Amino acid sequence: MTEQDRTTEQDRTPVTVVGLGSMGRALAEAFLAAGHPTTVWNRTPAKAAPLVAKGAEHAPTVGAAIAASPLVITCLTTYESTIEVLEPAAEALRGRTLTTLNSGSPAGARQMAEWARGHGARYLGGAVKNVPSAVGAPDTLLYYGGDGDVFEEFAPTLRVLGGDTVYLGADPDLAALYEMAVGGTLLPALVGFFQGAAALQARGLPVASMVRFSTKWFEMINSTLPVFTDEIDRGEYGDPASSVNLFLAGAAHDAALGAEAHLDVTWHEPFHDLLRRAVEAGHGDHSVSALTEVLKLPQPGRAG
Amino acid sequence: MTEQDRTTEQDRTPVTVVGLGSMGRALAEAFLAAGHPTTVWNRTPAKAAPLVAKGAEHAPTVGAAIAASPLVITCLTTYESTIEVLEPAAEALRGRTLTTLNSGSPAGARQMAEWARGHGARYLGGAVKNVPSAVGAPDTLLYYGGDGDVFEEFAPTLRVLGGDTVYLGADPDLAALYEMAVGGTLLPALVGFFQGAAALQARGLPVASMVRFSTKWFEMINSTLPVFTDEIDRGEYGDPASSVNLFLAGAAHDAALGAEAHLDVTWHEPFHDLLRRAVEAGHGDHSVSALTEVLKLPQPGRAG
Ligand SMILES: NC(=O)c1ccc[n+]([C@@H]2O[C@H](COP(=O)([O-])OP(=O)(O)OC[C@H]3O[C@@H](n4cnc5c(N)ncnc54)[C@H](OP(=O)(O)O)[C@@H]3O)[C@@H](O)[C@H]2O)c1
Ligand SMILES: NC(=O)c1ccc[n+]([C@@H]2O[C@H](COP(=O)([O-])OP(=O)(O)OC[C@H]3O[C@@H](n4cnc5c(N)ncnc54)[C@H](OP(=O)(O)O)[C@@H]3O)[C@@H](O)[C@H]2O)c1
Repeated sequence: MTEQDRTTEQDRTPVTVVGLGSMGRALAEAFLAAGHPTTVWNRTPAKAAPLVAKGAEHAPTVGAAIAASPLVITCLTTYESTIEVLEPAAEALRGRTLTTLNSGSPAGARQMAEWARGHGARYLGGAVKNVPSAVGAPDTLLYYGGDGDVFEEFAPTLRVLGGDTVYLGADPDLAALYEMAVGGTLLPALVGFFQGAAALQARGLPVASMVRFSTKWFEMINSTLPVFTDEIDRGEYGDPASSVNLFLAGAAHDAALGAEAHLDVTWHEPFHDLLRRAVEAGHGDHSVSALTEVLKLPQPGRAG
Repeated sequence: MTEQDRTTEQDRTPVTVVGLGSMGRALAEAFLAAGHPTTVWNRTPAKAAPLVAKGAEHAPTVGAAIAASPLVITCLTTYESTIEVLEPAAEALRGRTLTTLNSGSPAGARQMAEWARGHGARYLGGAVKNVPSAVGAPDTLLYYGGDGDVFEEFAPTLRVLGGDTVYLGADPDLAALYEMAVGGTLLPALVGFFQGAAALQARGLPVASMVRFSTKWFEMINSTLPVFTDEIDRGEYGDPASSVNLFLAGAAHDAALGAEAHLDVTWHEPFHDLLRRAVEAGHGDHSVSALTEVLKLPQPGRAG
């Protein structure tokens, strides 16, 4: 290490990364690349070796890992496994800042926050919206909820993990909430895409030929989102670009595609059902974004 | 009209547009704006007036409309309504080129092609992948299937409707096929988005705050499509970026979100079911794109 490296390193907040799976490893690598003194720990110790080769400190115990840095970032599979790993060394967390970057439910994030505060730690609940290889890129999105002062204090360090680092607000479960709210499109969109792929294969066409059209399609969906959210936030669905009835008329196409390409299209049925329930609720000529209302279960205690 | 306009117009292929709903009107306006002599016809004649004001010729009958131009473009609701409207004037189609731009099934496009050829017309089956307001834009996608010579002959005229004009191949149903293959993501993706919107509303958060995150999410989905199509085209799912098991583990999040925000999440069940069937078929550790295989119904006549 040169004298210059040492000076730079002294300006950087020391960080600890606990959990060195695909994502945790990428996080530690980003901190190392940015010159942060980085301490790592993992249940399976062998996973620390490639990081040690890049300059990481390998802590012998999770307690030692926590003690090494003011900012402790965990990236384990779940909140449950995170508490399981930290519990024996919980006392070391007093006065530290704990940031979790695993996926999980808002309820799990709230329990995690309570647990951390119970042990005298400050807490930020975070989430990474991308794959490990994107960690550290200027465009990569990570978001956090929790104490705003804590976020401010560590923002320059957290920004190492992705240039698009966002503070959502004071509730520690906001990252988990947005993660779920936003992520709910993924599997349905992919299954729709795979169905199209199967339809092309039934005709002997290369599936790769679909990519450029599907890409435009998702760009088009993106362009409609501000219109839909405006309708939903105002609760006014009466001036539709695309109505519920228009989508219901299109539902017949699903059966046609199934017959055409010999595909199982039964997974569309709940969507047709939602559309029909929207019509029953008087939304037939309203914007398809009125489905938002149909997805809400009746409030217990409210009449009807 | 100036002398210069008249000269320009003489270089342009005359076109006829039959069906002046939201889309048909946009098509006719694009041709008028580009200086093509444009003849229009609609069942409800009043809809021709704004186009006549812009220079269109209003044909008194559908037969006269067809006789007016070598290229006849129809944009009615369905193939059935298209045949219904053209039938009484079918003889006028001999030697003309008919292009349909409605939505519909590949089977419907094949019937349409047969009908048109039976009356001595050349046929291109097309589809517009955007809203009427996008017609004529450099980025707007339209695709066509049918005789390649016919497409070549009229390509400069068709390109007036959208800068991204694509010839898919000789089969007249290819546009309908791609339209369905690509469009199958729309409703599922939107319902996933509306669910997220409802989850934010349950917390009193503005739904507009989700847009920038969802936009990134769809961009991320776009970036994964070439990887998935490569796996599907090769039929090799063994080196996954995201496995079926990973998605199945994420399925628990749907229930958590439902409980959190008091939402109906039963529409996810067929997706969980597909994932479980993929695991049963040995795809647990394979790429989630292996769901393509699970969507294919067993071929009649094949064992198993
Ligand atoms: N990979 C992605 O693309 C991605 C993207 C966004 C978010 N995430 C989220 O990030 C988190 C981690 O994902 P990953 O891809 O890194 O997962 P992974 O590769 O499977 O790694 C899981 C990590 O958790 C540890 N772990 C799990 N259970 C444990 C326990 N009971 N005790 C101790 N350690 C335990 C594992 O330790 P061992 O090494 O000892 O097994 C390993 O370090 C998940 O919540 C995931 O949803 C991942
Ligand atoms: N609008 C879009 O965003 C969009 C986007 C892509 C594709 N498309 C497709 O384009 C096609 C037309 O859509 P649009 O939005 O223009 O629909 P629209 O506004 O409802 O117009 C329907 C047109 O079809 C005519 N029509 C329907 N049935 C008829 C019949 N039996 N006899 C005579 N005329 C009949 C209507 O004539 P009248 O005026 O006399 O009723 C009208 O001209 C559809 O297949 C649609 O899926 C639309």
